[in-house]
Amino acid sequence: MGSHLVENLVAEGNQVIVLDDLSNGSLNNLRAVRKDITLLRLDASKESSIRKIGKLDGIFHLACHPRSFSFHRPARDVDVNLRSTINMLEVARKHDAKLVFTSNSGIYGEPQHVPMDEEHPIDCKTPYDVNKYASELQIRAFVKEFALKSVVCRLASVYGPRQKVNEKLGWRPVVATFVNCFVTRKPPVVFGDGEQTRDLIYVKDVVDGLVKAFNSEEAEGEAFNLSTGVETSVNCLLQMISDVFGIELHPERGPPSIGDIRHMCYSNLKAQRIFKFEVKYPLSVALKGYVAWARVNIGHATG
Amino acid sequence: MGSHLVENLVAEGNQVIVLDDLSNGSLNNLRAVRKDITLLRLDASKESSIRKIGKLDGIFHLACHPRSFSFHRPARDVDVNLRSTINMLEVARKHDAKLVFTSNSGIYGEPQHVPMDEEHPIDCKTPYDVNKYASELQIRAFVKEFALKSVVCRLASVYGPRQKVNEKLGWRPVVATFVNCFVTRKPPVVFGDGEQTRDLIYVKDVVDGLVKAFNSEEAEGEAFNLSTGVETSVNCLLQMISDVFGIELHPERGPPSIGDIRHMCYSNLKAQRIFKFEVKYPLSVALKGYVAWARVNIGHATG
Repeated sequence: MGSHLVENLVAEGNQVIVLDDLSNGSLNNLRAVRKDITLLRLDASKESSIRKIGKLDGIFHLACHPRSFSFHRPARDVDVNLRSTINMLEVARKHDAKLVFTSNSGIYGEPQHVPMDEEHPIDCKTPYDVNKYASELQIRAFVKEFALKSVVCRLASVYGPRQKVNEKLGWRPVVATFVNCFVTRKPPVVFGDGEQTRDLIYVKDVVDGLVKAFNSEEAEGEAFNLSTGVETSVNCLLQMISDVFGIELHPERGPPSIGDIRHMCYSNLKAQRIFKFEVKYPLSVALKGYVAWARVNIGHATG
Repeated sequence: MGSHLVENLVAEGNQVIVLDDLSNGSLNNLRAVRKDITLLRLDASKESSIRKIGKLDGIFHLACHPRSFSFHRPARDVDVNLRSTINMLEVARKHDAKLVFTSNSGIYGEPQHVPMDEEHPIDCKTPYDVNKYASELQIRAFVKEFALKSVVCRLASVYGPRQKVNEKLGWRPVVATFVNCFVTRKPPVVFGDGEQTRDLIYVKDVVDGLVKAFNSEEAEGEAFNLSTGVETSVNCLLQMISDVFGIELHPERGPPSIGDIRHMCYSNLKAQRIFKFEVKYPLSVALKGYVAWARVNIGHATG
């Protein structure tokens, strides 16, 4: 997601500083804009990192540790998903910069109504959810105390080119994982009965939403779902990918993931209303482009 | 608070391990029980510390970074007030130990009704509040996922012997700060108009409550205020201390503290009902004992 955002910002004529420890990202993804950006290869959770950041007008805080591994490495989750937010708040305060924070729609837990809007109760099921939500609360406290400019975007399940299956970090986004299986002809694994649903949103739509949120004065101090409002079951997704590839792979079955959410479906009406958020790439369309990219770019390794 | 709890636990025949980096505590406070305990002089927020902890049945997690300094050192606040909770959850999980966590009643923010009970909405005004509340949510997520035994105690404003005014850490508890002023004959400083109130609870009542909470099966998975339900304004407290000393000191005035709460008054009925929590030392009684202690033990230095 970071590299897509950087390309977008550079294309609009912005000077961009990228702060990334490359634990999940890859320099290769930045090759088109490498000469236009300043790269700080640093860990955003360390206070020493933020002292290296110079003057800036805006911060897109995308650093993230995966939900699925948060019970396995909960202290690291605190560092990446909360401590780095605190650090970015300190930078925002120092330079009077606007902060866009990427939270996650998983903080709502299981739906009490569908689609879930921003007023839906919060129910944190994993350390990841708690740290994302705590980041939002920290932002709220700082905004109130120091009149910071900030906007929170709660992302649904993002997919698209350059997304990595990172076994070391425990990052196995469902679309990338399945597509990799079809490219490498390995059986996909479905955890649980496969009837759990996801609200799958294409990375270009998310990036467009983040930039719109940043540019909207009306959005300041608010939280917005960046989602499609459409739910797709894991089984259905597998069938759709199978259709694009024109191959059938017999899936293996695994146990349900801990802290998994049964129904994910999030309203984006608030973002539509306040900053004209749009879903330009529905799954049926975007999946074809993503598969085309994956066929060229994914080798036999899935990592 | 830690040393009072340790004395209580040792007197009941328990084997006690004390984990403390002594950034605010003092070895001197443990002298009566020094030979009965194992002391690990370590920082609870570091993962390396928890590997040094052996088998145990229960954990009282009291490590804390002060609310008043949390906007000044928010990253350190994350470490002490949240990361250390994660570490204690890991220890609790490993040894199947019961965890008592000391949260803070400040997480309710300003009252929507008085006294505030455990169902009162949460409104986190400072990084400290967010990290205490996030600790509670982490505990809830771990309890649900791993069937841990745990209880959360939300403490009101604790005071009593051995409490330190720690300028380096920004820890200036109101009772200790005022009493020190009277002992050293320095003018006390009242921040704001002094009509802000506190629910002041004596350390021995809190320790008694923590042990009762630990011993109660019915309390598991729940949160309890440990408070008096009585509010005392800062001006009134100053007058009460003045009366005990028999001295008038003309207070200086300072600006209101950031993130300060105007009315603090918390119901303890739930703790009374579930584990027979009692306030045995009302302020008018306990203050005399505390002042007697302070006259002997507080020198000319207030640090």
